[in-house]
Order: sequence, then C-alpha cells, then structure tokens
Amino acid sequence: MEIYTKSTDSVAFEPLTNEGAKDAEIKVVIGKEQGAPNFIMRIFRIAKNGHTPLHSHEWEHENYILKGSGELRNSKGESKQIKQGDVVLIPPFEEHQFYNSGNEELVFICLIPIMDRV
Amino acid sequence: MEIYTKSTDSVAFEPLTNEGAKDAEIKVVIGKEQGAPNFIMRIFRIAKNGHTPLHSHEWEHENYILKGSGELRNSKGESKQIKQGDVVLIPPFEEHQFYNSGNEELVFICLIPIMDRV
Repeated sequence: MEIYTKSTDSVAFEPLTNEGAKDAEIKVVIGKEQGAPNFIMRIFRIAKNGHTPLHSHEWEHENYILKGSGELRNSKGESKQIKQGDVVLIPPFEEHQFYNSGNEELVFICLIPIMDRV
Repeated sequence: MEIYTKSTDSVAFEPLTNEGAKDAEIKVVIGKEQGAPNFIMRIFRIAKNGHTPLHSHEWEHENYILKGSGELRNSKGESKQIKQGDVVLIPPFEEHQFYNSGNEELVFICLIPIMDRV
C-alpha cells in the first residue's frame, strides 16, 4: 500500500527565520520528499503576540485554523479576525501577515502550490 | 483586503452520493467559487462504520485528520490506521477507502488539485 500516513506530532517545529517573523514556527508535513505532486502542506505555530512576516508573493495560501485565534493584517491597517475552524484563501500577490492577537498559541495548516508545476 | 475567510461551520455537509459510499458527507470550503487557483479544500465527515467508496483516480489526495480515528483500506485487504492529527498522502491511481472503524465520527480535510491545471 503506497499510501503515506504519519502523525504530525512526529515532525518537530522549526523557527521561522524569515525577516519580519516573530515567535513563529513551521513544519512541513506533506512535501516533495513524500511525493506530493502539486501542493505542499505545512503547519505553523505562533506564540501570543507573535506573527509571520508582512509580505506578498506570487503563490496563494489555503489555510485551516487548527487552534487559537488571531488576525490577518496588511500594511493599509486592514485586518480580518480568524479563529479555530476557519479557512483562509490568500490570493497570489495579496499582502498578508498572520498575527496572534489571541490568548493562546495560534496553529494553522498552510498549503502552497509546488511552484515548478504552476 | 481581498483575503477570503469563513468559518467552516457556516457550510453545511451534504451526503456523499457516490456509489459505494455509506454514511459519509462532504462540504467544499475553498473551491473555484472562492477563487482557488490550483487546489480545492473539502471536509469529509463519516459516521461510525461508514466509509467513502473503494476507488482510485488520477489525482492525489492530501488529508489532515481533524477528529476521530479509522483506517484506509484497499481491495487487497491492506489497511493503515489513521487518527486525529495524522496526515495522509494518497498518490494518483492508488486505490483507497476511508473507513470509520472508530467509536466517534471521523472528520478530515481532503485537498485535491484543480484538474484543468494539472
């Protein structure tokens, strides 16, 4: 059976080292290494008051919020609240920052396309 | 802000009507309608002893198990256990059936590529 399964707990988080990130971690749970043909699944964990970089890029994000709450921000001062059970679609080139404005850790799934296929 | 967010609770499950499905439901939470460029996010819910069809197809699945436990089965009698917090990659053309062999409902995210892009 060529189906691949694993517990996400078996993969360690690593610090997100991108400039502009604060108290944010990432782990890849389904990637090219596992044979993903078209898109990759990562999990982010952000501590209270932490955030990902405020940036934009040519690929989209699709997200599912697993735990906690927070908001999406841009440099225009706009924001959208997010919480456990929400989904998010960030279109290509749309500026975004995940910010943990809640009282517990913010954990979410983040999918991106494999860029040499799109 | 062109970022799309919603609570997955705001989308109703619908019965999975494919032949071979039993007590299984589906809802699309990020699809073409929301502007997804490359892949689509669905959520499945399967009652105790329910299952999806035993089938194969040319596209992959990437899954995250949100709740419950169960197994992946094929027609060779092979199976793999799955539980909350696990991820699954079902490669293209690999036969599979999600079966809820646990004691509560089995709920999981299931991502597929948008086929006219791959």
